[in-house]
Amino acid sequence: MKTLKELFAQLSQSQNQTLAVANAQDKEVLSALKQAQELIGISAFLLGKEEKIRQMMAEISMREDNVTVLDYPDPEECALAAVRLVRNGTASILMKGMIDSGIFLKAVIHPDFGLRTESGIIATVAVMETERGFLFITDPGFTPLPSLHQKELLVEQTVQVAKKLGIERPKVALISGAEKVNQKMSSSVEADQLKQMYRQKDIGCVVDGPLSLDIAVSQEAALHKNYCGEIRGDADILIMPSLEAGNVLYKSMVHFAHIPTGGIVTGAAAPIVFTSRSDDAATKLNTIAFACALTKEICL
Amino acid sequence: MKTLKELFAQLSQSQNQTLAVANAQDKEVLSALKQAQELIGISAFLLGKEEKIRQMMAEISMREDNVTVLDYPDPEECALAAVRLVRNGTASILMKGMIDSGIFLKAVIHPDFGLRTESGIIATVAVMETERGFLFITDPGFTPLPSLHQKELLVEQTVQVAKKLGIERPKVALISGAEKVNQKMSSSVEADQLKQMYRQKDIGCVVDGPLSLDIAVSQEAALHKNYCGEIRGDADILIMPSLEAGNVLYKSMVHFAHIPTGGIVTGAAAPIVFTSRSDDAATKLNTIAFACALTKEICL
Repeated sequence: MKTLKELFAQLSQSQNQTLAVANAQDKEVLSALKQAQELIGISAFLLGKEEKIRQMMAEISMREDNVTVLDYPDPEECALAAVRLVRNGTASILMKGMIDSGIFLKAVIHPDFGLRTESGIIATVAVMETERGFLFITDPGFTPLPSLHQKELLVEQTVQVAKKLGIERPKVALISGAEKVNQKMSSSVEADQLKQMYRQKDIGCVVDGPLSLDIAVSQEAALHKNYCGEIRGDADILIMPSLEAGNVLYKSMVHFAHIPTGGIVTGAAAPIVFTSRSDDAATKLNTIAFACALTKEICL
Repeated sequence: MKTLKELFAQLSQSQNQTLAVANAQDKEVLSALKQAQELIGISAFLLGKEEKIRQMMAEISMREDNVTVLDYPDPEECALAAVRLVRNGTASILMKGMIDSGIFLKAVIHPDFGLRTESGIIATVAVMETERGFLFITDPGFTPLPSLHQKELLVEQTVQVAKKLGIERPKVALISGAEKVNQKMSSSVEADQLKQMYRQKDIGCVVDGPLSLDIAVSQEAALHKNYCGEIRGDADILIMPSLEAGNVLYKSMVHFAHIPTGGIVTGAAAPIVFTSRSDDAATKLNTIAFACALTKEICL
């Protein structure tokens, strides 16, 4: 599978997924869910201020079948309740509604009732629909400066995401400011260490770095620079050296290149839909679709 | 002036600038110079392997008027000689030909014969021709992680560049991973410090930050996020938190959004044309044009 269109088609043929939405009283979130109902078929628990949720649903003519509204006026209790529905398997995807990110994430990583796993790192993966297929960028949202070990976790989690989305042997580019190891740029040193590590450890992917962005995504640039590594413009996954670099890349692809996108949060026990108010409607819908494709039940 | 077309038109009416090119025996470099001869009118000293240079000039039918070829077969001597031509005022712009970047830069910063200034920081500025006009990104090429003081120098140098290119009161966005100060992200802390600094010190520009890229370049995103600062999608200059973030932004704008670009090196006593082999012909030509606009003699 290489396009959003194909992903939507496949999901519409698959079993319905169930989302638990914390503080669902947000028209844009509900509109995205309504579209998801229509295009791929979903079920949802909408937690939050019940009266407001019902009123908004009516305003946008959102169907009530497969939807359960639960009254949780307090945001903290609401987030914990939504997390619990996912933890006990009643829902398969957690979604953030109109709630402070801090309160939402606190529930996600709650030591007793949360969705943290023993080995995962909570991370954002932006998925871009480029001409070559899906391109996965991590982590533009959570860890400011991932350590070597955290980058290893990012590689492994994102490889799993890419495989779920149909890429058999993902090509992982460890991005830095240049393609040569430079002691003054720690990302280049760590990229080299990671590359060596994955020469010994086969997780069903190709890992190359340090790479500059042009070599990772442009065959022409790789050719011009006579780059002879394993990735020459055909990277599937970009492991970014910092949150800032990932954030800037993701946003420039959206705002300058107008590339369709969605983003999911990985590293928890279930996929999390964590969209931002500034994401447009299509991005919110794409994100729900990516999350559906990543649930344990789905095998596309 | 807001477009490359306007810039070329104005330069074609202005006094010819003279370039000193170190190791000019490179067909792509000579082709760019030939185009610059035709479009804006330039003079050039071509230093390097004289025979090769003359042969290549003949192959691409490059005109010999206003061109002086000087035989410097040794790259180090060649770079120093080119730098000296600029230092003594014979040429107004230095250009890198087919020469190792390290050797070239060593000549640029030579303590006795180089082009270093007392207060400047050698930095790359990528100039992008967006729908809104020129957007200046610094530093995608030299300093891995600029300090607070180095960022101050970057602000001041790039403001001068933007003014030379027709932006009267440039809007300077200090880019970070988000628009809030986050103690775990030093770029956001330093952005706030810089913003405060420029409230006391007027250098004829607007400085705002920390800003995420979307708020800096997209009015829509700034509106969605209810951002009320001085820059709302209309930044002219982006001061990037790291080389990696700048490099990734510049390259994604080129490779995904296909935005016309050129880049110049600032902070030396004269503009420097420092193109990479992977830059296409148009980028090399644009870079020469930007350098011409930045010479002391030119007043567009």
